[in-house]
Amino acid sequence: MRTLRLTIAYDGTRYAGWQIQRRGGPTIQATIERVLARILREPAAVVASGRTDAGVHALAQVAHVRVRSSLPCERLARSLNALLPPDITVTRIGETSQAFHARFSAVSKRYRYRIFTGAVVPPFERLYVHHVPVRLNVALMRREARALEGRHDFRAFARAAGPRRSTRRTIHEVAVRRRGEELHIEIAGNGFLHTMVRSLAGTLIDVGRGRFAPGAVRRLLRNGQRRSAGTTAPAKGLVLVSVSYPATRRVFTTRSR
Amino acid sequence: MRTLRLTIAYDGTRYAGWQIQRRGGPTIQATIERVLARILREPAAVVASGRTDAGVHALAQVAHVRVRSSLPCERLARSLNALLPPDITVTRIGETSQAFHARFSAVSKRYRYRIFTGAVVPPFERLYVHHVPVRLNVALMRREARALEGRHDFRAFARAAGPRRSTRRTIHEVAVRRRGEELHIEIAGNGFLHTMVRSLAGTLIDVGRGRFAPGAVRRLLRNGQRRSAGTTAPAKGLVLVSVSYPATRRVFTTRSR
Repeated sequence: MRTLRLTIAYDGTRYAGWQIQRRGGPTIQATIERVLARILREPAAVVASGRTDAGVHALAQVAHVRVRSSLPCERLARSLNALLPPDITVTRIGETSQAFHARFSAVSKRYRYRIFTGAVVPPFERLYVHHVPVRLNVALMRREARALEGRHDFRAFARAAGPRRSTRRTIHEVAVRRRGEELHIEIAGNGFLHTMVRSLAGTLIDVGRGRFAPGAVRRLLRNGQRRSAGTTAPAKGLVLVSVSYPATRRVFTTRSR
Repeated sequence: MRTLRLTIAYDGTRYAGWQIQRRGGPTIQATIERVLARILREPAAVVASGRTDAGVHALAQVAHVRVRSSLPCERLARSLNALLPPDITVTRIGETSQAFHARFSAVSKRYRYRIFTGAVVPPFERLYVHHVPVRLNVALMRREARALEGRHDFRAFARAAGPRRSTRRTIHEVAVRRRGEELHIEIAGNGFLHTMVRSLAGTLIDVGRGRFAPGAVRRLLRNGQRRSAGTTAPAKGLVLVSVSYPATRRVFTTRSR
């Protein structure tokens, strides 16, 4: 069996998220697995670094798949991109060690949340930004964002998890950047709870709108009360930017663009 | 009656072009006129600088409309953008002189044709670029492009026009620019025949592929044979960038973003 590592970009607009679901619309995972099985003539289970929710996008999601086929990576990449719908593309395929696991080997993930603050969203960006046409207090957002960095219990920012699952995570960086008429919230961390990034983004937007007193984020981390947190920002503004792994010797890599 | 000048951005993907048609899908013009009539409670005929074909986009199409309503431009812009679908936005409305005519007053229009030359089109650009994953000879494209500048009979590059319509037009500039993995063909001129920009872009792409001998564009302009010209490039790569008018005193202008 060979272990392949795939880097995948997708526009999540018309998908019910990454993970195969019992019901409710097409998923990225199911779409890729179907095409892979057709090319390789063997069932192939694709494991990603993590699920993305319905409507969330990815610039560079990472996944692994174990296959019997000896098809060269370059040819596999070409076949995949020829058969995948144009809103999913495989940007890289490489053979990696058996020990590699897209989810458990990941050391860090980086997300970007895009907020459009101008009066009118340009038609070409409408699927990729959250429209907040008000003046946001960026200095205050940055100050509150700093409280998120480090190891904390993020239960206030997640959809209810099972009682035994840990809700402690480490956030390496939260940056709030102006980009023309957009504001980007970039969040890097070792892992994220369900809807956590959107909940953090929504809370920081509420901070920028003046809906929270200074120190609110620190208090939320302390009291862990979900209902006290801000709005969960809509999925379409969120994009998974990259996933980091410990440096490993790659056996063979194809960049397909 | 007041004359209003509108600047409009649209994603043409799901439209049968600018102009109202007897049958065949929604149009940009019909969509805007319906919303305008609803806001102003009077029928409103919107005249653009020119039609764009089905699937062609616009960053800044210009149109005029004559109305009885005294609704301030700023409020009209807000109402329009609130009621228009998100793939059409009005970026500017101003009151202008009765003499202004979006089509007849225009002195120049600028189009951009976007070609993606890498192996795999990024999912987020898939609706806005034409995929040509081969090495194009850009130097040759530039040399042939130069032959297009000036006043010529462009009948070889247009869908058959009526016999009495002139097919002479003036092209001010044709530039071929690299933008990362994209190649942009920018064409500015005083007017364009039906499908002319896409026919010029397609011919230049064929030049870049090596399908024409040097001097081919000059020969096409001379012999006027449509069947000798290159492919008509697909609509989705084309965007109307701007329309120029003689400097006029604007009575009132609202920039809505």
